[in-house]
Amino acid sequence: MAKFAIMGHGTLGSGLAEVARVNRESIAAKVGEEITVKYILDIREFPDSPDADKFIKDFAIIENDPEVEVVVETIGGTKVAQEFTRRALMAGKHVVTANKELVATYGKDLLAIAAEKNVNYLFEASVGGAIPLLRPLFQCMAGNQIEEIAGILNGTTNYILTRMVQDGASFADALKEAQAKGYAEADPTADVEGIDAGRKICILSNLAWGKEVAPANVRMIGISALDLKDVDIAASAGYRVKLLGHAMRMAEGKVAAYVAPHLVPESSPLSRVDDVFNACLIRGNAADEVMFYGRGAGKPTASALMGDVIDAIQHREKRRDLGWSESADLFPSEELVMQWYLRGDFSAADAKGVCGEVKEAAPGAVITAPMTEVQAKAAAEKLGAEAVLRVL
Amino acid sequence: MAKFAIMGHGTLGSGLAEVARVNRESIAAKVGEEITVKYILDIREFPDSPDADKFIKDFAIIENDPEVEVVVETIGGTKVAQEFTRRALMAGKHVVTANKELVATYGKDLLAIAAEKNVNYLFEASVGGAIPLLRPLFQCMAGNQIEEIAGILNGTTNYILTRMVQDGASFADALKEAQAKGYAEADPTADVEGIDAGRKICILSNLAWGKEVAPANVRMIGISALDLKDVDIAASAGYRVKLLGHAMRMAEGKVAAYVAPHLVPESSPLSRVDDVFNACLIRGNAADEVMFYGRGAGKPTASALMGDVIDAIQHREKRRDLGWSESADLFPSEELVMQWYLRGDFSAADAKGVCGEVKEAAPGAVITAPMTEVQAKAAAEKLGAEAVLRVL
Repeated sequence: MAKFAIMGHGTLGSGLAEVARVNRESIAAKVGEEITVKYILDIREFPDSPDADKFIKDFAIIENDPEVEVVVETIGGTKVAQEFTRRALMAGKHVVTANKELVATYGKDLLAIAAEKNVNYLFEASVGGAIPLLRPLFQCMAGNQIEEIAGILNGTTNYILTRMVQDGASFADALKEAQAKGYAEADPTADVEGIDAGRKICILSNLAWGKEVAPANVRMIGISALDLKDVDIAASAGYRVKLLGHAMRMAEGKVAAYVAPHLVPESSPLSRVDDVFNACLIRGNAADEVMFYGRGAGKPTASALMGDVIDAIQHREKRRDLGWSESADLFPSEELVMQWYLRGDFSAADAKGVCGEVKEAAPGAVITAPMTEVQAKAAAEKLGAEAVLRVL
Repeated sequence: MAKFAIMGHGTLGSGLAEVARVNRESIAAKVGEEITVKYILDIREFPDSPDADKFIKDFAIIENDPEVEVVVETIGGTKVAQEFTRRALMAGKHVVTANKELVATYGKDLLAIAAEKNVNYLFEASVGGAIPLLRPLFQCMAGNQIEEIAGILNGTTNYILTRMVQDGASFADALKEAQAKGYAEADPTADVEGIDAGRKICILSNLAWGKEVAPANVRMIGISALDLKDVDIAASAGYRVKLLGHAMRMAEGKVAAYVAPHLVPESSPLSRVDDVFNACLIRGNAADEVMFYGRGAGKPTASALMGDVIDAIQHREKRRDLGWSESADLFPSEELVMQWYLRGDFSAADAKGVCGEVKEAAPGAVITAPMTEVQAKAAAEKLGAEAVLRVL
């Protein structure tokens, strides 16, 4: 019999309590012991919950109860969540979280505490929601040198982009629709400006290469400046515009990581990932390309949290070391060589004169040969281009 | 320092030796110890191999060398492979394999030996090639009750079907092309008759529900009888014909599993999986649908083998129990209720008279309402239908 505590009773916390309750028997059969929720920490009251008798308001009860082996943090943010995570780890408890902001920003420190106390700090749920992603990357693909990661890591922006492509909605209208459906928050900044996807590409990079890529050092370009015109031209030329978190292994052990909208060719399986779904493509030098697809947010994320709770208990004696300790040596994303989409009041012949060989996507819109951002922006300036986008 | 042996030096065995050699340093950094190949067992000579000094012809050398912790079996078939697997497990060595025939047919017995000797028997590579699939299903999704598995599990048939859809090739011509490219064997029976996919859906079912589904008890319908006409009609009606391994959790703890060609709606991410790629969709009651995509055969499979070697070494003291011990109670696939595609010399009105409400896919081709196979076949007989196919 193993017992755990859940901090927070929002979508994720209540979803996890439900999974633990509904799947109690099947989980016990798989793990060989029963795993039950002992406490749920929330400042609010939930008298009608089937777990009503488990609610507490004082974290110290969890901290001081030796029966609680695992603490799941679904509070969010980096203040209370960080304090309680530190204290739980210091108290020798395994901690499981979906909190990408906390993991991306303070993961290195928290993993160091977990190592010192010989407990697990697990965060499968922090990237890709319900999609098994971090463990496959870190464990199943451990025989690979990871070459590249490209992911649709934010469901809100993917929903907005899908509405723009499928219904010809403007960014502003699609955002309003996403907010009405509860997919986007009242303040959508972290989603639409690529900050959420940025935290996730940092966590993926940390695991892929074992060194910390700090969000503060990662270029994040969102979709708020995206013109419907370019989404349409891209679609007619065989591309879908997607917001990608993108990371690559470079020479001399360097890592490049950034977030930006990309034209994704229809031949890529990422181009077909629509609505609120997430997907992540990982390229390793042994496996070639694999892709993971599913629901990146909301209640299904409880699946990943429960998986981590089970894993923590199965590895209660031998900690899983998913760690990164030192900082990565970053390759500036501005110097990455890739193809670019340029659109403006110019002809393909003009573009050819400035960029060399180009592919015409539409009148006044071209795809360039591979070049750096510095080169692409210089070309765009010469041509008076109104839109400059990356091509995957 | 951990040492392992590879049995067989074909595509998989030589691929694994190469991965171990090329990624030696990155693997050591991840695992915390070096993992190297000590022996390669093959009856052939490979004097030009960079591992030439490691070749042996006598299995007993591996069996009797206490330094060999893990044995990787890439021999194939169920004779020599089974004998050496048993002997390696009996000798207290972990065994890793890509051999779906052996795992599907004798997995229960081999897992029992592994349990008795407290060693790992791991077979991530046996389903989906390089795609992380079994471990995510068994571990990351352990908090779920698995409801359904639907997979494109055989690359050869998916290549053939893709050629039929994209180039209008007949089955026979597409098969010849697949053979010329090395995707299909001279005797393509196991692939085109659904036997290979059948073994794989058995292994997935075993892991999903913890009980053995024996290949001998699983209905396997291949693609050799597929008419190009139906592939074309399906495409024009918004479907792709795919050979699926399909398994479901039924009432009273029963399991249904079978292999058959299906019309897959374009809205399903499985419909977009083309050429030799594999993909598997797994639906759990917590995670909802997730999909795993990648290269299901050939050299990239070495990635999964290496991942299992690493896992075996990381769990050398505490065995991973992926086991199934008893037999599953099977639900007959004939009684599953699903939609059907019927095509023949009849009108939609005729079909409506016989089947109730139908959707017309083309003149003389309809999609029925959900019904059992018995009902669908009775309707087909009344209508004189020439083609009867399942719809996902």
